[in-house]
Amino acid sequence: MNNEKDHSLIMQTHTKIFTSPLYLTSGRILEPYQIIYETYGKLNSDNSNAILITHALTGSHHCAGKYQNEAKAGWWDSMVGNNKYIDTNKYFVICANVIGSCYGSTSPISPTYGSFGDNDFYRLKFPVITIQDMVKANKILLNSLGITRLHAVIGGSMGGMQALSFAILYPKSANMFISISASYISNPQIILINKVMREIIMLDSDFKGGNYEISSTSLPRFKGLQVARMLGFSQYLSLSTLHNKFSRRYVPTDGYFELFGRFEVEKYLDYNGANFSTYFDPLCYLYLIRALSMYDASLGFTGLEHALSEIQSPLHLIAFNGDNMFPISEMEHIKEQMDTLGLACSLEIIQSDYGHDSFLVEVNKYGDYIRELLG
Amino acid sequence: MNNEKDHSLIMQTHTKIFTSPLYLTSGRILEPYQIIYETYGKLNSDNSNAILITHALTGSHHCAGKYQNEAKAGWWDSMVGNNKYIDTNKYFVICANVIGSCYGSTSPISPTYGSFGDNDFYRLKFPVITIQDMVKANKILLNSLGITRLHAVIGGSMGGMQALSFAILYPKSANMFISISASYISNPQIILINKVMREIIMLDSDFKGGNYEISSTSLPRFKGLQVARMLGFSQYLSLSTLHNKFSRRYVPTDGYFELFGRFEVEKYLDYNGANFSTYFDPLCYLYLIRALSMYDASLGFTGLEHALSEIQSPLHLIAFNGDNMFPISEMEHIKEQMDTLGLACSLEIIQSDYGHDSFLVEVNKYGDYIRELLG
Repeated sequence: MNNEKDHSLIMQTHTKIFTSPLYLTSGRILEPYQIIYETYGKLNSDNSNAILITHALTGSHHCAGKYQNEAKAGWWDSMVGNNKYIDTNKYFVICANVIGSCYGSTSPISPTYGSFGDNDFYRLKFPVITIQDMVKANKILLNSLGITRLHAVIGGSMGGMQALSFAILYPKSANMFISISASYISNPQIILINKVMREIIMLDSDFKGGNYEISSTSLPRFKGLQVARMLGFSQYLSLSTLHNKFSRRYVPTDGYFELFGRFEVEKYLDYNGANFSTYFDPLCYLYLIRALSMYDASLGFTGLEHALSEIQSPLHLIAFNGDNMFPISEMEHIKEQMDTLGLACSLEIIQSDYGHDSFLVEVNKYGDYIRELLG
Repeated sequence: MNNEKDHSLIMQTHTKIFTSPLYLTSGRILEPYQIIYETYGKLNSDNSNAILITHALTGSHHCAGKYQNEAKAGWWDSMVGNNKYIDTNKYFVICANVIGSCYGSTSPISPTYGSFGDNDFYRLKFPVITIQDMVKANKILLNSLGITRLHAVIGGSMGGMQALSFAILYPKSANMFISISASYISNPQIILINKVMREIIMLDSDFKGGNYEISSTSLPRFKGLQVARMLGFSQYLSLSTLHNKFSRRYVPTDGYFELFGRFEVEKYLDYNGANFSTYFDPLCYLYLIRALSMYDASLGFTGLEHALSEIQSPLHLIAFNGDNMFPISEMEHIKEQMDTLGLACSLEIIQSDYGHDSFLVEVNKYGDYIRELLG
């Protein structure tokens, strides 16, 4: 697909099918599997200008530019593009949809092996996927593209976890790794919220325990998924953002003494929850929040120090104050461990009122820093 | 009911029916209505030793002692009793179930007027109740008992909001007011979480939009209410409590790579959610979280300063660091306003790892201070 409005941006979407087995952390195998990815810019002759972008929980391979008739550009369009902070005139940017997500890579709503084309979908038979599995799939994709050494791996939130694990698992695969708004581990508060989200989705009778009708053309608008998404905002928005954005303003057309009257923040949740369910799938959501809850960068190592000791390129951490999801102290812990190991690591703390979502909405606050790191 | 184990504690439970109308903030009327309350100790001859305790969201009139065959004592038993911090040898303690709650005061699961005894329950026709309405009902109860001047009003969380509003609305009604783990307003984060809880309860098909079967002998064990309760723990427990209590420990009998395998914190939520639904009602929960979301101490005044300027007795505030629900800064704001007004106010900040729940679980950290204040 080519972009119409921004003629200068070379944007391509591909789906690649892999017939060799993908060995997962769980001991299970995905075979065959496919990965949908998008590229921006041009790969140079010695394949040395590639940057991999890893996406967050509900993100996709579509991180920049606009398709024909698309209302909104890709999720990191303010960061990635011609003459932007990650300059696609200079770099060949790759962004792939993670295994388990619903945008086209193999997931719980994919047909099972041997049934391609018919209606036997994985659903809850899909294997549990780890962040490390997502990283592995990305690495296999890069190999298939002939890219053995990236200039950088960059991602925020769940994408930041992937960037960190990429550095640990494939230390020679990039000149640098940039992990934003993330952590080395999911703390019990994240596990708690993910647990509640899971219960909300399962509570929805339309979800039918995962046995709802799967359609290739439209997503069912599950109320449970909508409510789970609403809860997500308690992590993404800081209290100060909520104060600035909504305070206690009340929807003027709702009665204050009506039980179902709404504050503006409630209307916002209704809107965004409903919207989310038009483009995201509840089975995939269950698998992705599970991956998030399970995340521990030291999985397979004797501990975090052991895991980090594998790293061979500079690790750059970017955190935002007021992040409800990943406290800055967790990023500081990585930095301390890297310092102890004598390994190259920077930690940049950005002052922001937006908390966790800053990496998406306040790109101007740290974009120049990213540009500088990329050199 | 008399206590069997603790012979020395004089404990009585009463239900009082009021046939005069209760005029609510909403402009609606409750008539008739009833209040269930419990008393501990003995009222002295000049009715001057009474203390009113106001309860939190899911609390009840049963704040101390044990009934016959009851496994667990009242919710503030470590605070209230003979020779305890609030000494029932010395004080006559009253604790009433708030209007709207499910322990015996008039609520959405009460029969409507004219239908006492049959099956026409209020359900969603019940009027919206404010914290100020709860306070008013408590004041009417006190008047009916001949108590015009209390020694103190004391409460935590939603009970702390009541204590503050008691001071504003009935400034001559007590020698002092003690508000713990509370605020003068519900911030948008609380509104957000309450909104999600409401949606969870409504999502439960067994809830039937509030038209489930109401029984006087048992509560239906609603899954939606269980999940809403699970979410409550994100407010009650601080991250550091979660780390200390659960860390990332995994249930040994669950498989780590099972989608529905559980971390210990998830098992805890399952247990506590299920338990909660055996003693709490979902319609009442909807009304109480609505009251919480709506809370603003300045309701009916031109602003907070105007509201606080009504206060005539010392106001004592107790806050705990790490409170996820009511940031300490909100208590500090009350203190500042009181100082500006030249009114007596103290703010005690307690170092704690338990966050919001400290007022229930770490009574030993501030009990002596309460005893001192009571003098």
